Amino acid sequence: MDNPNGACLVIGAGDDTGAAIARAFAREGLTACVVRRDRHAEALETLAASIRDEGCQARAFPADARDEAEMRALVEKIEDEIGPIEVAVFNIGANVRFGINETTSRVYRKVWEMGCFAGFLMGREVAARMLPRARGTIIFTGASASVRGGSGFAAFSGAKHALRALAQSMARELGPRNIHVAHTVIDGAIDSTFIRENVPDVDRMREEDRILNPDDIAANYVHLHKQPRTAWTHELDLRPWKETW
Amino acid sequence: MDNPNGACLVIGAGDDTGAAIARAFAREGLTACVVRRDRHAEALETLAASIRDEGCQARAFPADARDEAEMRALVEKIEDEIGPIEVAVFNIGANVRFGINETTSRVYRKVWEMGCFAGFLMGREVAARMLPRARGTIIFTGASASVRGGSGFAAFSGAKHALRALAQSMARELGPRNIHVAHTVIDGAIDSTFIRENVPDVDRMREEDRILNPDDIAANYVHLHKQPRTAWTHELDLRPWKETW
Amino acid sequence: MDNPNGACLVIGAGDDTGAAIARAFAREGLTACVVRRDRHAEALETLAASIRDEGCQARAFPADARDEAEMRALVEKIEDEIGPIEVAVFNIGANVRFGINETTSRVYRKVWEMGCFAGFLMGREVAARMLPRARGTIIFTGASASVRGGSGFAAFSGAKHALRALAQSMARELGPRNIHVAHTVIDGAIDSTFIRENVPDVDRMREEDRILNPDDIAANYVHLHKQPRTAWTHELDLRPWKETW
Amino acid sequence: MDNPNGACLVIGAGDDTGAAIARAFAREGLTACVVRRDRHAEALETLAASIRDEGCQARAFPADARDEAEMRALVEKIEDEIGPIEVAVFNIGANVRFGINETTSRVYRKVWEMGCFAGFLMGREVAARMLPRARGTIIFTGASASVRGGSGFAAFSGAKHALRALAQSMARELGPRNIHVAHTVIDGAIDSTFIRENVPDVDRMREEDRILNPDDIAANYVHLHKQPRTAWTHELDLRPWKETW
Repeated sequence: MDNPNGACLVIGAGDDTGAAIARAFAREGLTACVVRRDRHAEALETLAASIRDEGCQARAFPADARDEAEMRALVEKIEDEIGPIEVAVFNIGANVRFGINETTSRVYRKVWEMGCFAGFLMGREVAARMLPRARGTIIFTGASASVRGGSGFAAFSGAKHALRALAQSMARELGPRNIHVAHTVIDGAIDSTFIRENVPDVDRMREEDRILNPDDIAANYVHLHKQPRTAWTHELDLRPWKETW
Repeated sequence: MDNPNGACLVIGAGDDTGAAIARAFAREGLTACVVRRDRHAEALETLAASIRDEGCQARAFPADARDEAEMRALVEKIEDEIGPIEVAVFNIGANVRFGINETTSRVYRKVWEMGCFAGFLMGREVAARMLPRARGTIIFTGASASVRGGSGFAAFSGAKHALRALAQSMARELGPRNIHVAHTVIDGAIDSTFIRENVPDVDRMREEDRILNPDDIAANYVHLHKQPRTAWTHELDLRPWKETW
Repeated sequence: MDNPNGACLVIGAGDDTGAAIARAFAREGLTACVVRRDRHAEALETLAASIRDEGCQARAFPADARDEAEMRALVEKIEDEIGPIEVAVFNIGANVRFGINETTSRVYRKVWEMGCFAGFLMGREVAARMLPRARGTIIFTGASASVRGGSGFAAFSGAKHALRALAQSMARELGPRNIHVAHTVIDGAIDSTFIRENVPDVDRMREEDRILNPDDIAANYVHLHKQPRTAWTHELDLRPWKETW
Repeated sequence: MDNPNGACLVIGAGDDTGAAIARAFAREGLTACVVRRDRHAEALETLAASIRDEGCQARAFPADARDEAEMRALVEKIEDEIGPIEVAVFNIGANVRFGINETTSRVYRKVWEMGCFAGFLMGREVAARMLPRARGTIIFTGASASVRGGSGFAAFSGAKHALRALAQSMARELGPRNIHVAHTVIDGAIDSTFIRENVPDVDRMREEDRILNPDDIAANYVHLHKQPRTAWTHELDLRPWKETW
């Protein structure tokens, strides 16, 4: 076994949030196992390398999270080569906005596959490993669309609502078996590559703390993982101080 | 055009609820267009015939509601042969219960396809017809799993949560264009074939009104359709008086 | 006994909504018992007279709904002189908006007393009469503030949240004893004297159906009362088609 | 000024939760200002002394939190003698259970005064101090009754719902002015004097971590206070791993 502290699996480690979460758990001594689609394999390896450069442990696993066989193999590989998966974080976004009549069935299905079905696969596969050990934390990343539909958000809020139902159902089933399942509601723009490239006043937003800092999000994921089981949180929201909600 | 009052499309008219809803709208003068999978074509025709026996209008349309081409053709056929779809009701249930590790990806996907994706197809296709007319009612049938996950209900509550997100998103987009989109939360056992075959004391439950009567559910769907647009309901719950919630 | 069909008690029959609700139940054959504070006794009597002018039955009862002794005496008087209270509607609004530091303790308390405590008194007193008969409907009028706090709405949303908790608690206790307890969420401006005097474009809003019509609200209260107990609604929302939510 | 780090005000420091919260913030360098009614003055002083025995700072302030003048004087005294109130925690419970017809108006009002009105007074008074400094954290302690009514809980859930509306309204108003307002939903039995005296198998519950540990609750309050403003949580739930919900 590579790391007696075990592994932290992060599905959707492409954006800045997933990267920050992986880094934060690596600093806690776990091996960050970062997952992203094959075509981003290079960026993924760069992320893993940057975590290792800090003296922490990280491994890049290019994979399609919607593929059951790949996910099963991935979990097996991590458990075999690195150690027990102590934390698994599902962090795929899939935010799109289309009016209902502009939403193709391909988009509707794909958003669900990425934003929900992949989360089901991850959740089920890591639960199967955690249950015999009666130990582990599973965190699903949600958004305000997880709790509220909106004009143009039929596909996105559908996937996010379903992911929340998954988190809640798993928490009710697995909590009493000592698996901590949590769901976050991230409400607001995150200081990510996408936002930096598309929002003009991002620098000012950052200066004024009006944009979610990925490291600050990550700190809450570590907090959730460290909660003693006498007082577990299932759901918490995170938003910048100036955010309207 | 067959019926100047137009049509009421009911997807999932196999169980007693869908049948009662179809019958109730037929009694209001609309042509009930009942839809169910091909293998139930005979039962579907029996239902349509029984509505016609009352002196109302009904047509059976065997179809797979998860198939985009079939749904598109179905809506076209109804609009061409019968009249404008004034009401569309999505009523497919897909209730299953499995622990997370007993939930196959096939089941998880199928429950979503039946309980949610088919609802998206119906909603989008009828909205495309209703929008130019700026008129119509679309109702999605939910359950307590629409608002709450539960141990063993990852698949079912996922589909139902996503369907609710669809209803809410469509309501926010289409309401101001005069399409009334509503969602019901049916909480409790329904006096249906399934329950009659599986619950031993169903007769006593019926005597004591402890089981949802399909006709009483249907009356609420008609009420929703008839609400003037100064006071539309988006969501209402329905449960028997003795139900614990 | 004055009316074998019994009485409908409406607390807060001063605005147009309460008046419309009273009138709607009077048309169903019940005696509308309308209640408002003493200083509005004249307007209250005018309302009762206008209902009687339709050939229906109505009585004006000036009273302070926050006063326990008055409420108890009122319920006794109605039961003695008119008949069993079959429906009771709590419809006091108390909408105010103040920043937290501009909210005096007097205002905070008064809003709660009017918008919630009076509802508790009404609910408890009529439940005491309905329970031995195992029959009756109790409806509490809510608002969007019942389900969401807002800047400036600490007092109003506090009273409305508490009223919703009362309705839900009573429904769970009394439903299985055949008392139908319901809560409505009215979302949007109502076509009332207050709005007509304060909103400039009210005529255009009315023309475009963008304002809640009191009679249309009332029709839903009658619908709730008439629901057979196999399918009771506990909560429904009502908003105009163009309302943003 | 006594403490340049400022003060942490804890209203309702009588039970074990409030005591643990006070102690936790004292360990962070703030002066714990613990408040409880006069008749518990001795216990309150014992708590303050025990915090000081650890080398931390604490002061006992016997006061009636429902009394506006006392609360105003209390806040003034703390700000004058100790330092700026950086954190204020409202922690009064007031859990009672009565059927609706056994709920006296005295009980209904008192539960609201203790569980909600006192929270309003605290929130408003500390906000008035924090706003000119544009800095501070205000936390309200909720329960599962904050989000759900229940048979027998009209009074308790009413107060808790109203407190949650207060927290949400204050958060929406004060968040953009840099005051962090949060609400917790504590779900389950707490390892408190009351529970220890009334629940027979409390020792076994504690051994199995099936009871909320006050120190573990307190750690989450400190976490909320320390969140950077780029990622604030407004609401989090806390429950033991085996709790059914």
